[in-house]
Amino acid sequence: MKSKMKISILTLFPECFDYFKISILGRAIDRSVFDVRVVDIREYSTDRHKKCDDTPYGGGTGMLLTAQPIYDCIQAIDSKHSALRIFLAPTGKVFDDIKARELASQNQEIILLCGHYEGVDQRILDLCMDQVLSIGDYILTGGELAALVVVDCVARYCSGVLGSEFSNIEESFANGLLEYPQYTRPQEFHGLKVPDVLLSGNHKMIAEWRSKTSLDLTKKNRPDLIR
Amino acid sequence: MKSKMKISILTLFPECFDYFKISILGRAIDRSVFDVRVVDIREYSTDRHKKCDDTPYGGGTGMLLTAQPIYDCIQAIDSKHSALRIFLAPTGKVFDDIKARELASQNQEIILLCGHYEGVDQRILDLCMDQVLSIGDYILTGGELAALVVVDCVARYCSGVLGSEFSNIEESFANGLLEYPQYTRPQEFHGLKVPDVLLSGNHKMIAEWRSKTSLDLTKKNRPDLIR
Repeated sequence: MKSKMKISILTLFPECFDYFKISILGRAIDRSVFDVRVVDIREYSTDRHKKCDDTPYGGGTGMLLTAQPIYDCIQAIDSKHSALRIFLAPTGKVFDDIKARELASQNQEIILLCGHYEGVDQRILDLCMDQVLSIGDYILTGGELAALVVVDCVARYCSGVLGSEFSNIEESFANGLLEYPQYTRPQEFHGLKVPDVLLSGNHKMIAEWRSKTSLDLTKKNRPDLIR
Repeated sequence: MKSKMKISILTLFPECFDYFKISILGRAIDRSVFDVRVVDIREYSTDRHKKCDDTPYGGGTGMLLTAQPIYDCIQAIDSKHSALRIFLAPTGKVFDDIKARELASQNQEIILLCGHYEGVDQRILDLCMDQVLSIGDYILTGGELAALVVVDCVARYCSGVLGSEFSNIEESFANGLLEYPQYTRPQEFHGLKVPDVLLSGNHKMIAEWRSKTSLDLTKKNRPDLIR
């Protein structure tokens, strides 16, 4: 894993990224494990009212982000195209844990472009973007939450972000399955007991129980993950 | 659609939901289209240090959220179980656009429980929760971003949240496919022209072009969506 990654977020709503100030990610940024830069697209608009949206050709409701402010913004911050440029939109390929690891390990610089309104002018994708990624099959009011999700996931794989309270080893998807059920004290809670095996101290049996419950849960909730 | 929905978010990190103050959702909340209440789980801990986490039985890294604070919190805010109670975790069923519509149309009250650390004691799911939902196949540092995503998506389907700048009709997934490419002014940008058909004024041809490009994009990026 690279030790220090640089992520630039291009948005019309930079205030959404105040989220970093209050989360574990913010602490990682403070420790300079990785850099996040939030760039206001509107500052690059050459329109005298700093307008950044317009109606779609061919008709339809809603507004699109215009090409000029985004294009000029990207030229300004990544003139040599040294960053991997990602547009976040539901039309993209699926972002998942495998992709998060790949982004963290193979890239020193990433640009995340947040869509808003009905989307962006297609020519921005054609001229400037390397990839389109989707965090899920749903529509957000903007790409800002998607960017927060991607940064959060990718940051987990940058060394130094996760403290001892987190692990990457036994999470869901690490072995292609959902994580097994977990229990903590007390041994009995409102009539429900911790499974005996977890109290047995027999590591082999515990590992077997966890494998089995992990597989059972995956079959029940996500049969599509079992190839 | 119900006119006013009530969403309660249970979290150890209530400050993460300052996000509402600065987003379009915040404006919707201000207009009282729906209510969001953020509840600090820690306030319900009976531990004298307000501790809410403990190590997992059977071994493993990381900490789990203990059952007591969450259980008592839910009893306090939803004693009659009138709300649909959802735990947000990657082990859940897939949250998507169809689920968002369903949640918005069929429920007056929703509780979203945000996991953190390695997860929560399984008995909370067994005793208190109706569903587990996952916003995607990746691991977040906590369920707070997942809750923001769910609220954002569900809110889009509550009447009054979306202003005229948004539409639900021609988004991705509305017809099971990804949305077609969109273009706005100028007609030519850095050598790339808007497709002639979109300038033709021929609504039938535009609709056909959009259907075709929508299908092409879905085949390319998300063949899994085409049954």
